[in-house]
Amino acid sequence: MPCSEFKLIAGLKKFQNLSARVVHGIGDDAAVLELDARRYQLFTADMIVEGVHFVSGTPARLVGHKALACNISDIAAMGGSPTCAVISLGLPAGLPVSYVNGLYAGMRALAQKFGVSIVGGDTVRSAQLVINIALLGEIEKKRLVLRSGARPGDLVFVTGPLGGTLQSGKHLNFIPRVKEARFLTEHFKPSAMMDISDGLAGDLGHILKASRVGAVIQAAQVPLNKGVGLAEALHGGEDFELVFCLASLKAHKLLQYARSRGACRFYEIGRIVAGPQKLALADQFGRCRMIELKGYTHF
Amino acid sequence: MPCSEFKLIAGLKKFQNLSARVVHGIGDDAAVLELDARRYQLFTADMIVEGVHFVSGTPARLVGHKALACNISDIAAMGGSPTCAVISLGLPAGLPVSYVNGLYAGMRALAQKFGVSIVGGDTVRSAQLVINIALLGEIEKKRLVLRSGARPGDLVFVTGPLGGTLQSGKHLNFIPRVKEARFLTEHFKPSAMMDISDGLAGDLGHILKASRVGAVIQAAQVPLNKGVGLAEALHGGEDFELVFCLASLKAHKLLQYARSRGACRFYEIGRIVAGPQKLALADQFGRCRMIELKGYTHF
Repeated sequence: MPCSEFKLIAGLKKFQNLSARVVHGIGDDAAVLELDARRYQLFTADMIVEGVHFVSGTPARLVGHKALACNISDIAAMGGSPTCAVISLGLPAGLPVSYVNGLYAGMRALAQKFGVSIVGGDTVRSAQLVINIALLGEIEKKRLVLRSGARPGDLVFVTGPLGGTLQSGKHLNFIPRVKEARFLTEHFKPSAMMDISDGLAGDLGHILKASRVGAVIQAAQVPLNKGVGLAEALHGGEDFELVFCLASLKAHKLLQYARSRGACRFYEIGRIVAGPQKLALADQFGRCRMIELKGYTHF
Repeated sequence: MPCSEFKLIAGLKKFQNLSARVVHGIGDDAAVLELDARRYQLFTADMIVEGVHFVSGTPARLVGHKALACNISDIAAMGGSPTCAVISLGLPAGLPVSYVNGLYAGMRALAQKFGVSIVGGDTVRSAQLVINIALLGEIEKKRLVLRSGARPGDLVFVTGPLGGTLQSGKHLNFIPRVKEARFLTEHFKPSAMMDISDGLAGDLGHILKASRVGAVIQAAQVPLNKGVGLAEALHGGEDFELVFCLASLKAHKLLQYARSRGACRFYEIGRIVAGPQKLALADQFGRCRMIELKGYTHF
C-alpha cells in the first residue's frame, strides 16, 4: 500500500514520546517547547526534493530561498520569529560547486533579511538534490497562535492573493509572512492561524478539524492572482500566505485599521460556523456548496 | 568540479550570520546556543540516504535506529543530553507503510531509551529513501566540551574498539555514548571530544586542527574489533565511539577509577604533542610514521 502524507504524520504522532518540556508536539506548523517564563521555543523542519518541489535546472538561489522560506513560513504561522537554522544537503554526484554556492547564497540572503543564524550543516551524496532545513524560532507565550482556537462567529482572512504560484514562480521566491504574523499577534491576536502550503481548502481544513468547527467562504471574496481560477486557489499548492481567524470585534478593528492605512494585506474571505468540520463555498446569491477539504498533494 | 564534504561545510561557514545567541556555530558536532544562565542548548542534524549510509533492503527498524543514533552521538560528543527531535522522511513511491512504521519503531525505541521527544515531522516523495533528523540537546555550561581544547601532554582516549562496523552491522545498531560522555563531563572533564563517524584518523584530525596541536598514537594500544586491521580503524567509517583528550592528571585518575571497577570502556591510545597538526603512529619500538588525517568519505 503506498503512503499518503497525512497517514504518515498520524503514524508518527502515535510514536511520539513527550517530555514535560513539550507544550505542543506533532500537529501544528511547528512544535512548541518551553523556553523560559516569558517565551516558547518553536521547532520545525521541511524537506524539499528536486523533481517534486522544484524542477531540475531551477536557479540555485531560488531553490535555496525556497528551502529556507518554507521553514520561516511555518514559524510565522505560529506568530513567531525565526532564530537559528541547520541545513542538510543531499547532493547528486557531479553537481557543480557553483550550484551549491548558489543554494547557500539564496539561503543567506533570506536568513539575513529575517535575522536567522545558520549554525550547522550536513552534506551527503544522494541521487536527487534534497534539502532539509530545521529551524528554531521564538514567541512570547501570550502571542502563540495554534490551529485549534477558531470559534463560531470568527471571520476568516488570508494575507494575499492565492493560486497559480507554480506557473508564476511565486512558489520559489515568496516572502514568508513573518511581518504580518508579528503585527497580528501584537495587535489583533488571531484565534487560529496556519500557512497555506497545499491550497486554501486543505489548509483551512486543518484549522476546521483542529478547532472542531465549520466555515463558509464567500467565493467572490477570495483574492486571486492574475489569470487564476478559484479551484486553483482552493486546491492548488504552495501559496505560503497565511490563513487566520479573528473574533468578529477584532476583525472589524483590523479592517478599519487597514482601510485607514490605504493599503491592506488582510483579505476577509468568510466566517467560522458551528457544526461539522466542513467547508462551504457561498456564491453571490448566498447559495452554498460543500468543498472537499483536500489540498495539493506531493504524493 | 565535484564537491567534497569538507569544502562544502567550509562554504556554508562563510555564509553563516551569527546572532548574539549563538555561542558556537558551524565547526563542531553540534551548534551551541544560549539557553539560560546555567545551560546551553545544542542543535544538530544528520541526513542518511539509501545506498550511501545503508543498503537497500536493510530492516526498517535498524535504519530508523541509525538515523536517530547518529544525531544522539553528535549531542554526546559535546557532553550533552538529547531532548527533542524533528524527523523528515523522503519516501520512494510504493514503499510499504509497514516499512515506514518500522522506521518509526526503530526511532521510537531509541528515543525512549534516551528520553528524546519526537515533536514534529515532514514526509515528502523522493527517489531514494532519505531520512533527516534534527535534534536538540542541553548541557550545563561548565560541562561543554568542544573540539578545540586539546593541549600538549593530554592523553587521548576512545570509548570502545574500532573498525569493521560496516561488515559487523554495528554501524546500524550502535548505542550512542551519551552515558560515557555524561560520566566524563561530570567527573573527568575532557579538554576536547568528538564522535568517530569517519574513522579515527579523520576525526582525531578534526580535534588536532581545531586545537592546533599534533598527536602520537600507539599502534598497539588502539582497541580493534575482532578480525579488523589498524588501517580500518584509522580510515574506516562509522564507529560512533567517542575520541577524547584528558589532561594527564585527570587521565591517570580516570584509569585508576576504571581499573578499580574491573570493566573499562575507556582506552588510552596516545598523547597530544605540541607542533604541527599532524598525527603520528608509533610502533612497539617507538618508531613513528605519519598518518594522513583522512577518514572515510561518502563522496
